Amino acid sequence: MNPTFRPTTESYSETTHLVLPNDTNTLGNLFGGRLLQWLDISSAISAHRHCKRVVVTIAVNNVSFDRPIKLGDFVTIKSHVSRAFGTSMEVWSDVWVEDQQTGDKIPCNSAIYTFVAVDNAGQPIRIPEVKPTNEEEQKRYDGALRRRQLRLILAGRMKPEDATELKALFT
Amino acid sequence: MNPTFRPTTESYSETTHLVLPNDTNTLGNLFGGRLLQWLDISSAISAHRHCKRVVVTIAVNNVSFDRPIKLGDFVTIKSHVSRAFGTSMEVWSDVWVEDQQTGDKIPCNSAIYTFVAVDNAGQPIRIPEVKPTNEEEQKRYDGALRRRQLRLILAGRMKPEDATELKALFT
Amino acid sequence: MNPTFRPTTESYSETTHLVLPNDTNTLGNLFGGRLLQWLDISSAISAHRHCKRVVVTIAVNNVSFDRPIKLGDFVTIKSHVSRAFGTSMEVWSDVWVEDQQTGDKIPCNSAIYTFVAVDNAGQPIRIPEVKPTNEEEQKRYDGALRRRQLRLILAGRMKPEDATELKALFT
Amino acid sequence: MNPTFRPTTESYSETTHLVLPNDTNTLGNLFGGRLLQWLDISSAISAHRHCKRVVVTIAVNNVSFDRPIKLGDFVTIKSHVSRAFGTSMEVWSDVWVEDQQTGDKIPCNSAIYTFVAVDNAGQPIRIPEVKPTNEEEQKRYDGALRRRQLRLILAGRMKPEDATELKALFT
Amino acid sequence: MNPTFRPTTESYSETTHLVLPNDTNTLGNLFGGRLLQWLDISSAISAHRHCKRVVVTIAVNNVSFDRPIKLGDFVTIKSHVSRAFGTSMEVWSDVWVEDQQTGDKIPCNSAIYTFVAVDNAGQPIRIPEVKPTNEEEQKRYDGALRRRQLRLILAGRMKPEDATELKALFT
Amino acid sequence: MNPTFRPTTESYSETTHLVLPNDTNTLGNLFGGRLLQWLDISSAISAHRHCKRVVVTIAVNNVSFDRPIKLGDFVTIKSHVSRAFGTSMEVWSDVWVEDQQTGDKIPCNSAIYTFVAVDNAGQPIRIPEVKPTNEEEQKRYDGALRRRQLRLILAGRMKPEDATELKALFT
Repeated sequence: MNPTFRPTTESYSETTHLVLPNDTNTLGNLFGGRLLQWLDISSAISAHRHCKRVVVTIAVNNVSFDRPIKLGDFVTIKSHVSRAFGTSMEVWSDVWVEDQQTGDKIPCNSAIYTFVAVDNAGQPIRIPEVKPTNEEEQKRYDGALRRRQLRLILAGRMKPEDATELKALFT
Repeated sequence: MNPTFRPTTESYSETTHLVLPNDTNTLGNLFGGRLLQWLDISSAISAHRHCKRVVVTIAVNNVSFDRPIKLGDFVTIKSHVSRAFGTSMEVWSDVWVEDQQTGDKIPCNSAIYTFVAVDNAGQPIRIPEVKPTNEEEQKRYDGALRRRQLRLILAGRMKPEDATELKALFT
Repeated sequence: MNPTFRPTTESYSETTHLVLPNDTNTLGNLFGGRLLQWLDISSAISAHRHCKRVVVTIAVNNVSFDRPIKLGDFVTIKSHVSRAFGTSMEVWSDVWVEDQQTGDKIPCNSAIYTFVAVDNAGQPIRIPEVKPTNEEEQKRYDGALRRRQLRLILAGRMKPEDATELKALFT
Repeated sequence: MNPTFRPTTESYSETTHLVLPNDTNTLGNLFGGRLLQWLDISSAISAHRHCKRVVVTIAVNNVSFDRPIKLGDFVTIKSHVSRAFGTSMEVWSDVWVEDQQTGDKIPCNSAIYTFVAVDNAGQPIRIPEVKPTNEEEQKRYDGALRRRQLRLILAGRMKPEDATELKALFT
Repeated sequence: MNPTFRPTTESYSETTHLVLPNDTNTLGNLFGGRLLQWLDISSAISAHRHCKRVVVTIAVNNVSFDRPIKLGDFVTIKSHVSRAFGTSMEVWSDVWVEDQQTGDKIPCNSAIYTFVAVDNAGQPIRIPEVKPTNEEEQKRYDGALRRRQLRLILAGRMKPEDATELKALFT
Repeated sequence: MNPTFRPTTESYSETTHLVLPNDTNTLGNLFGGRLLQWLDISSAISAHRHCKRVVVTIAVNNVSFDRPIKLGDFVTIKSHVSRAFGTSMEVWSDVWVEDQQTGDKIPCNSAIYTFVAVDNAGQPIRIPEVKPTNEEEQKRYDGALRRRQLRLILAGRMKPEDATELKALFT
């Protein structure tokens, strides 16, 4: 039986990619679409680790590309489930590039995807809650409800006046 | 010389893909990461058509996956630039799947990406404004400022109290 | 039930690709084999739109590569069914490259593929006739019989003396 | 210095592929576009072996798909240059599938591509003539002029009345 | 029924690849991982030709990369089964690069993989013995037992003192 | 300046892949050649982390495939440099598959690759020594010399009688 909650630590996934010519755009930088694909897989692994079920992407909520990533760079993606909402979950991914001389990891992207867990018939099923284990995870957990309301408003599935959490930001 | 504005009609791009085994996940549906890659290219073509410059993805603002797309489906993506903001532009894409018996196009996704135009040194450069040509495009144009404020708040680059357009939604 | 004919307009398909490093040969130009693959998919979509059936490629009749296509180019392929012959159909594709400064579309290839429609057991099935809707389509429709006779002679399935349409060209 | 002719035997290239899921269409058969890509590479190798120069595809003259090729099949492609015409050459490829019980090779496709040799500036350069070494090669050599006239007529670069070789077929 | 042995000549497979940008690392040389993939397929074809059964890779015993292979090079891989051991077989592959001016084939790698033949339930099944047909094949046949003992020792499945063949080398 | 040694802990790299249809063979299992490619990249990242230099694969010493990996499995590869020899280094990778119900990681492969560090002219350069940090790493460090002697003997670059370390195993 599924537990009623799982600590954030159990859903972490980590992947390091090497940017090959095949992954670059005409400027010689990592092609945005390729990074989106890597983020989707990394997030799916975290989502699965949280609920041990088949998971499907239902939204990309936000991905920012803050600095170009170059051919030959090592790109590390670290994902974890930041909060669950019944049958869906928000997955947060951080992306670093490694300085090739010093080995320092330079943050260069973050991404928020939403996944839903499904049973064999493709129907959504309940998943455990998330229990943050440190301050950073708690902050992301707290912000997740606001972001969810944003997503529902953008999708036309919630009225702004019902987004109580979000409203509080502005008033 | 670049014009000061361009009608939305000039930035439309259209692409139809056939979902091959290579594009599917373990459920036999179109893999989310692959669709994100297709959307990135389709949006980049629209962004380029609007400004005739090298363009780079700076954000994925929202992509919703409303229904699964199956192996063997024809997927049509239609993109256009909905609004420009100095050096950046919002690109909106709609995704349809074709009913294989009737040929009807069934809407199944929409996506919003942000691109920036850059010169040869990779520095952002000014681009023309967008002129909507019908009611739907006008509506997307009007909403773009709100979505931009959301994006900047999410990225921590704008304070909620400065997001005047967005604030009006809630108060 | 399938209609007895369909206008050419119903089978049009359009796709725009961006030439990425992954698509180039050692000269930095679009690799011929990749374009052939794109043409095959674009033609298959048109063939399917004409007959609403599973379609399989049975021949590539002619593809000419008139000018090199460069890394970073936008390549637009537009296909339509030019004529049907019982269970098979000729699909014509035109390829343009977009001038990156002006946006002009420069014609650079054309291609003729032949498809056959099959039922679930893989057996060929009758498809609707094609009804051209303008002069250009009519011209291609008229030439299709000649090209079909050529194809059958090349494949050793027709004797030159039986290719009445073709013979008329030379005598 | 380049010789004035080269025997057909020097341009032979052979490749065996295994059909993986990645190569199949929605029927589980080898996707036409993939085979076209394999044929393009195999033909390019033969064209290069004949002239020891950079070669580029200028036309696909004819490819017939006579029987479906299945997932898991071994596909052998054997190509050779059948005739040279100043700066261009016709390359003929034969495709076999291997019976997995008996190992027999079953012929299932043939293909004709045209390549041109170019110098460093991309300008066409003269290449050696082809010297057939057996009856089959001689037959293909003899037919090549006829096929070339066909190709030029189809491309609108030759008038039917000037295609003397071809004309003789019909009169 | 399977024969009790098959001559080495029946398992030969040959493939020529063209190194495209897609296949290179950040130095512009053929990426090691891609060559390992090509070797795996080429070896699998030989293994299948020897036993006419489904075969699966169980080990890569040794691959040496003696010289870099460049973008645009033609790479020829020739494989054959060097020896069978009940249900498994050693497959030896040689890799050449072609000098683009002279056409000479320059040896640049060799590789040893081990495959096992399986029935429909995935269980290992007996395969024919190998009969070498020349001196080189005989030498590889003779060395195969030694290499097998090495592999088993490395995998911790054989004690050094039981590796009689290998022991003889050192004492 | 490069240090004279680096602890094993600094070269660890970790990657989790999801096995997609694109990665499978005709049995629906992870294709051997694909895993070899993943191992090559994972090992290259570790090799680079150890020496902060461009690294190239010079040998695959041993990869064993102990159990089939299925479509939809999560595959985790963890690599580290086990020992350096002047300009070359041995990289050891372990592969686990995750039980989808329990999340347990089941060991299913291990692999040994050899890399060399090169300067801008492609010449080998000296790299730091490796300092093991636990018993397992020490055991792999100790075995590395023996494996290196094996590799050199197999490649014909060392005589068995000079392989003192190895000889001791058998006598």
